[in-house]
Amino acid sequence: MRIGILTSGGDCPGLNAVIRGAVLRGFAAGDHTFVGFRDGWRGATTGEHLVLDRERIRGIAKQGGTILGSSRFNPFDNGGVERVRANFADLGVDALIAIGGEGTLAAAQRLGEGGIHVLGVPKTIDNDLNGTDYTFGFDTAVQIATDAMDRLRTTGDSHGRCMVAEVMGRHAGWIALHSGMAAGAHAILIPERRTTMDEIATWVTDARARGKAPLVVVAEGFIPDQADDPHSERGLDAFGRPRLGGIGERLAPQIEALTGIETRATTLGHIQRGGIPSAFDRVLATRMGMAATEAVLRGERDRMVSLRGTDLTTVPFADALDELKTVPAERYAEAEILFG
Amino acid sequence: MRIGILTSGGDCPGLNAVIRGAVLRGFAAGDHTFVGFRDGWRGATTGEHLVLDRERIRGIAKQGGTILGSSRFNPFDNGGVERVRANFADLGVDALIAIGGEGTLAAAQRLGEGGIHVLGVPKTIDNDLNGTDYTFGFDTAVQIATDAMDRLRTTGDSHGRCMVAEVMGRHAGWIALHSGMAAGAHAILIPERRTTMDEIATWVTDARARGKAPLVVVAEGFIPDQADDPHSERGLDAFGRPRLGGIGERLAPQIEALTGIETRATTLGHIQRGGIPSAFDRVLATRMGMAATEAVLRGERDRMVSLRGTDLTTVPFADALDELKTVPAERYAEAEILFG
Amino acid sequence: MRIGILTSGGDCPGLNAVIRGAVLRGFAAGDHTFVGFRDGWRGATTGEHLVLDRERIRGIAKQGGTILGSSRFNPFDNGGVERVRANFADLGVDALIAIGGEGTLAAAQRLGEGGIHVLGVPKTIDNDLNGTDYTFGFDTAVQIATDAMDRLRTTGDSHGRCMVAEVMGRHAGWIALHSGMAAGAHAILIPERRTTMDEIATWVTDARARGKAPLVVVAEGFIPDQADDPHSERGLDAFGRPRLGGIGERLAPQIEALTGIETRATTLGHIQRGGIPSAFDRVLATRMGMAATEAVLRGERDRMVSLRGTDLTTVPFADALDELKTVPAERYAEAEILFG
Amino acid sequence: MRIGILTSGGDCPGLNAVIRGAVLRGFAAGDHTFVGFRDGWRGATTGEHLVLDRERIRGIAKQGGTILGSSRFNPFDNGGVERVRANFADLGVDALIAIGGEGTLAAAQRLGEGGIHVLGVPKTIDNDLNGTDYTFGFDTAVQIATDAMDRLRTTGDSHGRCMVAEVMGRHAGWIALHSGMAAGAHAILIPERRTTMDEIATWVTDARARGKAPLVVVAEGFIPDQADDPHSERGLDAFGRPRLGGIGERLAPQIEALTGIETRATTLGHIQRGGIPSAFDRVLATRMGMAATEAVLRGERDRMVSLRGTDLTTVPFADALDELKTVPAERYAEAEILFG
Repeated sequence: MRIGILTSGGDCPGLNAVIRGAVLRGFAAGDHTFVGFRDGWRGATTGEHLVLDRERIRGIAKQGGTILGSSRFNPFDNGGVERVRANFADLGVDALIAIGGEGTLAAAQRLGEGGIHVLGVPKTIDNDLNGTDYTFGFDTAVQIATDAMDRLRTTGDSHGRCMVAEVMGRHAGWIALHSGMAAGAHAILIPERRTTMDEIATWVTDARARGKAPLVVVAEGFIPDQADDPHSERGLDAFGRPRLGGIGERLAPQIEALTGIETRATTLGHIQRGGIPSAFDRVLATRMGMAATEAVLRGERDRMVSLRGTDLTTVPFADALDELKTVPAERYAEAEILFG
Repeated sequence: MRIGILTSGGDCPGLNAVIRGAVLRGFAAGDHTFVGFRDGWRGATTGEHLVLDRERIRGIAKQGGTILGSSRFNPFDNGGVERVRANFADLGVDALIAIGGEGTLAAAQRLGEGGIHVLGVPKTIDNDLNGTDYTFGFDTAVQIATDAMDRLRTTGDSHGRCMVAEVMGRHAGWIALHSGMAAGAHAILIPERRTTMDEIATWVTDARARGKAPLVVVAEGFIPDQADDPHSERGLDAFGRPRLGGIGERLAPQIEALTGIETRATTLGHIQRGGIPSAFDRVLATRMGMAATEAVLRGERDRMVSLRGTDLTTVPFADALDELKTVPAERYAEAEILFG
Repeated sequence: MRIGILTSGGDCPGLNAVIRGAVLRGFAAGDHTFVGFRDGWRGATTGEHLVLDRERIRGIAKQGGTILGSSRFNPFDNGGVERVRANFADLGVDALIAIGGEGTLAAAQRLGEGGIHVLGVPKTIDNDLNGTDYTFGFDTAVQIATDAMDRLRTTGDSHGRCMVAEVMGRHAGWIALHSGMAAGAHAILIPERRTTMDEIATWVTDARARGKAPLVVVAEGFIPDQADDPHSERGLDAFGRPRLGGIGERLAPQIEALTGIETRATTLGHIQRGGIPSAFDRVLATRMGMAATEAVLRGERDRMVSLRGTDLTTVPFADALDELKTVPAERYAEAEILFG
Repeated sequence: MRIGILTSGGDCPGLNAVIRGAVLRGFAAGDHTFVGFRDGWRGATTGEHLVLDRERIRGIAKQGGTILGSSRFNPFDNGGVERVRANFADLGVDALIAIGGEGTLAAAQRLGEGGIHVLGVPKTIDNDLNGTDYTFGFDTAVQIATDAMDRLRTTGDSHGRCMVAEVMGRHAGWIALHSGMAAGAHAILIPERRTTMDEIATWVTDARARGKAPLVVVAEGFIPDQADDPHSERGLDAFGRPRLGGIGERLAPQIEALTGIETRATTLGHIQRGGIPSAFDRVLATRMGMAATEAVLRGERDRMVSLRGTDLTTVPFADALDELKTVPAERYAEAEILFG
């Protein structure tokens, strides 16, 4: 077979390991060849591609980013199934491995309904896709955030300050939950858990009373409940839109005002998603790439690779797309015990 | 309740996070207290201990090693159940959380049979205990080994050398398998997979033919099959004892002789088991500690904490003790595809 | 002698290594003892202190922050020389080692004029104190910034974006210069070098034309020259005050507007100054602490420890205080060659 | 001009940064071009080379190893000056930048005497070349060794063991000195300092008596003084040859025998010289490469680039070649204070 691969959406440590794993699995299985479409769905639509031979994938497993490039291009605004099908015919491509997040997998599902042989590999640094225990990139992001918080703590301790660290997580607080647990945070603020400023202030004040410099971890998608703002309760701004970004910087002065403790915020930002993947992510991503090719060669379609325990399997796209995987209440309760 | 904790056997990144998680879980559940026995079973037998209050466990989750100390002391050679029972009575200890490997869990099982309320937390840096998806410390060890191999590769590439990296793994090759996959090794040698020197030489020569500096990862417990040595086939030396240690240094000249490629070995040794735990291990270890206390407080006994997927549960000691968790053939086959 | 030590101003990796070096040097030289004043000049003024014995300084060289605490307290607003002298008499303190930046050293100089036996250790993460080749903490900050930029580059490359990294450096661009050189930046923006938005846009566009994802490093104290704003030319806002902070976030949309290249900013912030010091900084800081005690014991006063090549010496306070050590034009020109 | 570059001897983090700095400096200065000879002096002798254009040096500053390859080839056994001159004439090469250690610089000196326009860049991971404050690669090696020792300490502390770490340093103990100071070693053993087993045992026992797990750092070239072996006093074996390698493994049982403290050795080996260079080394190496090209273009010859304080300059080859830069007694005495 001739198999196309594309990476779509935000970059994520491990994308190149998926590509390498998929290609080497195909080479081992027989006389299969691979092309990579450039910049995600854009390449699948325009036909722009590169040939993925042994030389091209050499040594890439430990490189961050994606050698194929990525974009947030919507194939259905740009000719959709017909153009993809035409390009596949031109290039002799029989099947597609689409590596991406919710939007990519939804597009893959729709292409599948249009007759394209497609298989998905879930990608989200936020770890918020259902249908898989973990996605690659998440472990690296958690490690980077944890390392950063280990550093912030020494500054907090030296100056008796409260340090606020804003991490990624628009709709789900997995990075905040794990890095906060790992770094010993005294408060973890995530979109899934309604939390008032008073509650935050109490956690901070209690940590200080125990002689510690308080560490607050906040996911970028968190919005504090505020009694006097009916919108904020539902995480919306005055126009009814979800409010995102800069929450760490906005929280810091409020915490300082409520507690009297000097408070500083740091937004970790893009450093969480770039660079060398952790060993965990390299292994997971490599195995996901291999599993994707195996599934394609077995004739599976309209499914997504999935990690279950230590095994790789596949699940229908719908398992990932029905709803986000958010932090369940019992996992938050578990973390909350450590605030004390 | 008053709960005793001990850490036994070789140190492992995450031990302190287990202790902290167990203690804070107990404090959150009610008026429970904790004592830590010094140096593993020795402390449980002599009664030497320290009180684990909030101050004592502060900030320890990210420290390597164990604040309790460890040893390879056998309680049954030293008074056994009776002395442990007497110490527990003296100290008012109602139950024990024993953190350790196969030997520790077997001792815990035997104490349980003697009426002690005991719960286990599995610990092996080699990840070779059954009954759990992963053990803490393994992820850190794999990361350290992977980082080291990333470094070795540049030396190999610059000099056109074959580099051999010896990693931990006496009876199971998990560290070699994962770090080798992550680092892009051209040969992975583990105790579970019979491999001849000729096979190794072929992998090395093939990698070189493709223009690469060959990287060979070998678990310390690996013994090559050699046709002319009937003992070696069964992994025994001339006296019928298993042969361990220094395998990397022994392989290097043999590889060089067979392939004509200059070959150098590095033994990673103790750096794999010390130091700051990875974020993954801190989270896993913390959750295991919390799960252990929960199980004790629920009245569970004679069981061990276990990770299944993303959930923590408990399993009977026997699940871990019946046989080692070795690398299955299909996982090795998966890795072997990447040698090419 | 009985020697007091204090750490003042922002925290910096290596402070604890200075303390340890100073104390152990004193112990080796004879029957000298040490006290540490809490929270910088506040402790010297109030007398709040801890005894620095062997146990207290054990293992601290690799800890970030300062075990003494720090603050931005001005002794001369709070009783000044008289109160410090009285506390020294009460505690039997004969001399003071003051570890801090420009303000601290100026205060030390003034105390010295008032008759206090005082010696300084220069501390600035920005490396902008004259009279010494390097200050500790700078190497760690540069390494953290470089690691972060290595990560940002993979994101830039994957998305074809321009990445802007804001690093520390209020008055001098040393961190930006070194981390930018190390990370291969295509533009380095520092307070010492007047740069227009057009010049920045040209660098970014040129990098893109050569097929690269542009990386721009900007020191927090940088202000672009803008022809239509007479204040900006002198780095002042409309009220004549220096404008600091958030420059990365402000530059990104301007770069995007001028070049048409999607641009994202990351502000590294506090992670640059906390955490485990680099080996370079541990050695430098330890040696500076030892040199400070040696100088005190030799009877030197009103001087500051200084690194010259590989040697430690002392210089008069005035050498550090006369003017800031800014990036000279030839060092910038050297770095600029690498933009291409 | 057309300038040749070669890298010779053992690899060292920063070699690629030197190459990039040299090439970009030449491009900035005018219409100069660069070729890289493959595998050190071998390429200069055979003429095998690659053209160093912008594309070829892109992104290499942070790569370990050398893109040119290296070898321990002696040009004077292989045609010497005549063959090098002939190749230079064929390729239009006007001058050579030779990056290497003592042997390489001596060969460069001899080629210079033969009329070749040659300039040297000193390279030794051991930092034992005279004529420069530091060489690149040393900082990275010290950091790797320090990180490893930080890990070893937690194992030592948990088990009450003495840990021995063997680091690089055949003739000079700089890596041992700096990493030992940084990691808080209780004994540092280097070739320059005659030390008996009794002295080592005393340091180890004293550290243990103060409640610490002893950490011993030993340079590979260290040989203990032993009263009953006249050869050992001069660092020779029974055949009068210097004895190198495996010293850590040999010391461990002797320390255990003398002190009764369980002792384990780890040999860091090749991981010290590979992989991503530290930011310090990237900046130093880049600047050295630039300084080399500047010197060549100024018409300097028969000299070597040198770091003095924060400045780069050049010195005659003889400054580096007259004698090794060993650890002076006062630097050892300084470190010894920290053992206590």
